[in-house]
Amino acid sequence: MIDAYQTSSQARVNAALERLFVAPAPELARLYEAMRYSVMNGGKRVRPLLAYAACEALGAAPEQANGAACAVELIHAYSLVHDDLPAMDDDDLRRGQPTTHKAFDEACAILAGDGLQSLAFSALLDPTLTTLDAETRLRMVNGLAFAAGPAGMVGGQAIDLGSVGLKLDQAALEYMHRHKTGALIEASVQLGALASGQATDNNLQALSVYARAIGLAFQVQDDILDVESDTATLGKRQGADIARDKPTYPALMGLERAKSYALELRDQALNALRPFDAAAEPLRELARYIVDRRH
Amino acid sequence: MIDAYQTSSQARVNAALERLFVAPAPELARLYEAMRYSVMNGGKRVRPLLAYAACEALGAAPEQANGAACAVELIHAYSLVHDDLPAMDDDDLRRGQPTTHKAFDEACAILAGDGLQSLAFSALLDPTLTTLDAETRLRMVNGLAFAAGPAGMVGGQAIDLGSVGLKLDQAALEYMHRHKTGALIEASVQLGALASGQATDNNLQALSVYARAIGLAFQVQDDILDVESDTATLGKRQGADIARDKPTYPALMGLERAKSYALELRDQALNALRPFDAAAEPLRELARYIVDRRH
Repeated sequence: MIDAYQTSSQARVNAALERLFVAPAPELARLYEAMRYSVMNGGKRVRPLLAYAACEALGAAPEQANGAACAVELIHAYSLVHDDLPAMDDDDLRRGQPTTHKAFDEACAILAGDGLQSLAFSALLDPTLTTLDAETRLRMVNGLAFAAGPAGMVGGQAIDLGSVGLKLDQAALEYMHRHKTGALIEASVQLGALASGQATDNNLQALSVYARAIGLAFQVQDDILDVESDTATLGKRQGADIARDKPTYPALMGLERAKSYALELRDQALNALRPFDAAAEPLRELARYIVDRRH
Repeated sequence: MIDAYQTSSQARVNAALERLFVAPAPELARLYEAMRYSVMNGGKRVRPLLAYAACEALGAAPEQANGAACAVELIHAYSLVHDDLPAMDDDDLRRGQPTTHKAFDEACAILAGDGLQSLAFSALLDPTLTTLDAETRLRMVNGLAFAAGPAGMVGGQAIDLGSVGLKLDQAALEYMHRHKTGALIEASVQLGALASGQATDNNLQALSVYARAIGLAFQVQDDILDVESDTATLGKRQGADIARDKPTYPALMGLERAKSYALELRDQALNALRPFDAAAEPLRELARYIVDRRH
């Protein structure tokens, strides 16, 4: 069932995203092509799925969350473009394709990433994408800026870069992941919920607990897959994190304990959704999928 | 008089900016230090001055534009950090000090720039900085995202990079500058005007004409100074643009014609301000200063 939901979420967000990459002038064609290349690359669209599913969990049509879905995916895409740069992770491949700085050039990749971040804020507020009241939209802007920013995702990347080769304990590792990936995952759920126009503070708090749990579960499972999978399945070099001496959950707590931790986190997420009715089923399915997936 | 106005604008925006660089946790200290280093560097704060002066021109206290002033300066600062990177302009010095990637490292500079862009949107909406109605604040977010983004400043940088070594005509050169520097200068004036809470459509249109004219005048004068000044005054290598075969106004139209063009643009800007009363005097003074300045 999550497969069908993911397919429809992908199609919905891809259609909304595609409209954003029409260059307004021929002089800007290459930049827009680089941005398009960085985003329209067959990504799984987990964050848009979360935004849509949170919106539906509160009884609204998923289309209401199109702006939120585009915005979080654009932030995610820009972070990957910059993360792949030679001065950062120096990756040549992303999902089996040349990274943006390889397909274009490094300057173009820096600018494409910069442009994607701005575009995220434009997309969030695109009047064709949302009809929410102004106060709620402002709250979404604030949430996106915080999650993407130095106290959120960018902060997590800085901590990650600073911790290569260090022996982190579990608290320090989680602190890093809560920022690097967790902040944007939480924002995806929160923005999707706000986009429903019907979110109570209780709803938002419960969804926060859910999002934090699946965010960590996602990372734990990623670390497990990095150890277990081969290059062909993952589309990146197997054991890449360990090869670079990056801290991982299996390295920290052992593979078996990491696997049971992922399951604990899944259950935390499912517990947080108890107050919600059947409309939250996609969110529940996703929590289960995260720890079951093989890539 | 513009000196006194600039000094007070600098002090006002610096006080507001300084509050933004308090790291929320020790793990984030280096990133926040890099962001702070990139912003609190003795910059002239031309864009904040424009925001304050536009706000005052519409009869409001300049403090009303603190959010706008911080936001445009943060966008400007991030663009300089990324522009200085080895893959871009590869500059070691900025205002006589090591550039961010030299004082820290390249990865840290990329992330500091990324974080400053997010922070701009947070600062624009900081509730302690503004008490405007939600619709006007949303309009400001949209304006900032557009001006900073791929159809604005980032687009201009992409065009600039793509035009090194090309023979641009005046129309193509202006198209580039209207994006690279013009878009954010226009946004500074528009956001400052909106922050007054009293801007009519006619006001905004007149200020747009003003901003476009001084934006170009600023660039023309910069090109002239790059030819005429020595390294000590400018804090960067003299003739740097010409050495890299970047298109400039003096190269395109000759030095004397470039100087008279700067004066024409100043007069266009002053004409656009005719409907405004004495409260617009700082904007007028700035238009005059731009073409009179020696650095």
